Amino acid sequence: MDKKVIGIIGGMGPLATADLFRKLVLSADAKADQEHPRVVIDSNTDVPNRTDALLHGGPSPVPEIVKSVKRLESIGAQVLLIPCNTSHCYYDEIAAAASVPVLHMIELTREALRERGIRRAGLLATDGTVQTLVYQRAFQGSGIELLTPDGADQAAVMGVIYEGVKAGRFDYDASAFRRCCERLLARGAETLILGCTELPLAFELYRLDYPAVDPTLELALAALRFAGCRVK
Amino acid sequence: MDKKVIGIIGGMGPLATADLFRKLVLSADAKADQEHPRVVIDSNTDVPNRTDALLHGGPSPVPEIVKSVKRLESIGAQVLLIPCNTSHCYYDEIAAAASVPVLHMIELTREALRERGIRRAGLLATDGTVQTLVYQRAFQGSGIELLTPDGADQAAVMGVIYEGVKAGRFDYDASAFRRCCERLLARGAETLILGCTELPLAFELYRLDYPAVDPTLELALAALRFAGCRVK
Repeated sequence: MDKKVIGIIGGMGPLATADLFRKLVLSADAKADQEHPRVVIDSNTDVPNRTDALLHGGPSPVPEIVKSVKRLESIGAQVLLIPCNTSHCYYDEIAAAASVPVLHMIELTREALRERGIRRAGLLATDGTVQTLVYQRAFQGSGIELLTPDGADQAAVMGVIYEGVKAGRFDYDASAFRRCCERLLARGAETLILGCTELPLAFELYRLDYPAVDPTLELALAALRFAGCRVK
Repeated sequence: MDKKVIGIIGGMGPLATADLFRKLVLSADAKADQEHPRVVIDSNTDVPNRTDALLHGGPSPVPEIVKSVKRLESIGAQVLLIPCNTSHCYYDEIAAAASVPVLHMIELTREALRERGIRRAGLLATDGTVQTLVYQRAFQGSGIELLTPDGADQAAVMGVIYEGVKAGRFDYDASAFRRCCERLLARGAETLILGCTELPLAFELYRLDYPAVDPTLELALAALRFAGCRVK
């Protein structure tokens, strides 16, 4: 009734968008359809590739993202979510274009780690997210050290994201990515940050089972609380 | 680029809406975000309970559904989907309110059964869907006979939908529903129609494995083809 309407700026990628939506539904403490918040989604697959824009001079994703902001606001969104870590490099521009609050997935993740007393975490993310230091900046002064994969291991992260999940390949060989996770843990990471919204899906699809924090889930939980819904 | 924008009139229920969205993404033959169609969703949980409206004099769901139609059209939807079988009782009113085509999930399911040469199918659906004969009407003259569960078995279908899936109970005891499925098959049903969009989720959550046709999946495939996307 008086619950806020949640808007999802999606399409980056579409499966990650569906994953956030599913986590919103499954995390709500609701016994009937009508107890869930209204959720509006623009799975805008016209947004250009974010890593390309950040590192290779590709077209900026911001104009298309701002279109989604306006569309979602026009149909009632009262809070906005961006289920794409890399896009958080553009957070300030996006938040400035919005008339309603935009939740910051990476800051929410930092708070989740802080609450669990984590001091050292491994960052699994796209080249764009890693090289633009969007996580490092959000974690500055938090007392949490971030470890990033070395060269070949970082390539394995990109592989599982782009050639595995985004390409819809259920039979992708995730062994190089597996070794990357294990090396971060061996270097002292207490947990792994699934810092690309395709990675919780990779963990599911390729049956990986390492200690991990899922920013998509943290975002879903924060959004439900913001919307005035009880969380399971 | 020139793919049509798919709109989902959702919230009936929210998990079924997420399920359709996920099936749209996973069924598209796309190797990158940008090859997927744009999808816009209004998971409108303000829509009143459909079975209540049809059988117990509850408020009509049509006004809220029409609000969703208008919202989705206003942000670019070029074809609309309703992932709720019971709501198809109101299909004519909804389609009349829309300026773009509304795909008919139940007719698509009939065609899917026809293509597979099915002559007798068991219908698993809400009391509202069963008693308003929406399936029976769509199947008239198709040469496909529909079997429906007897009294107590029909109650087991309602149980798994409302007390199981819609209540988010992963530990629900689905044994009565299981017996209902088995009796329909024993009566000669060659397959079961999962005629409520919560039922594919029930089959997944409670690990049921009977021959079945999933109208949500048929709707996803038809929508992708309509939108001009290749299907896997």
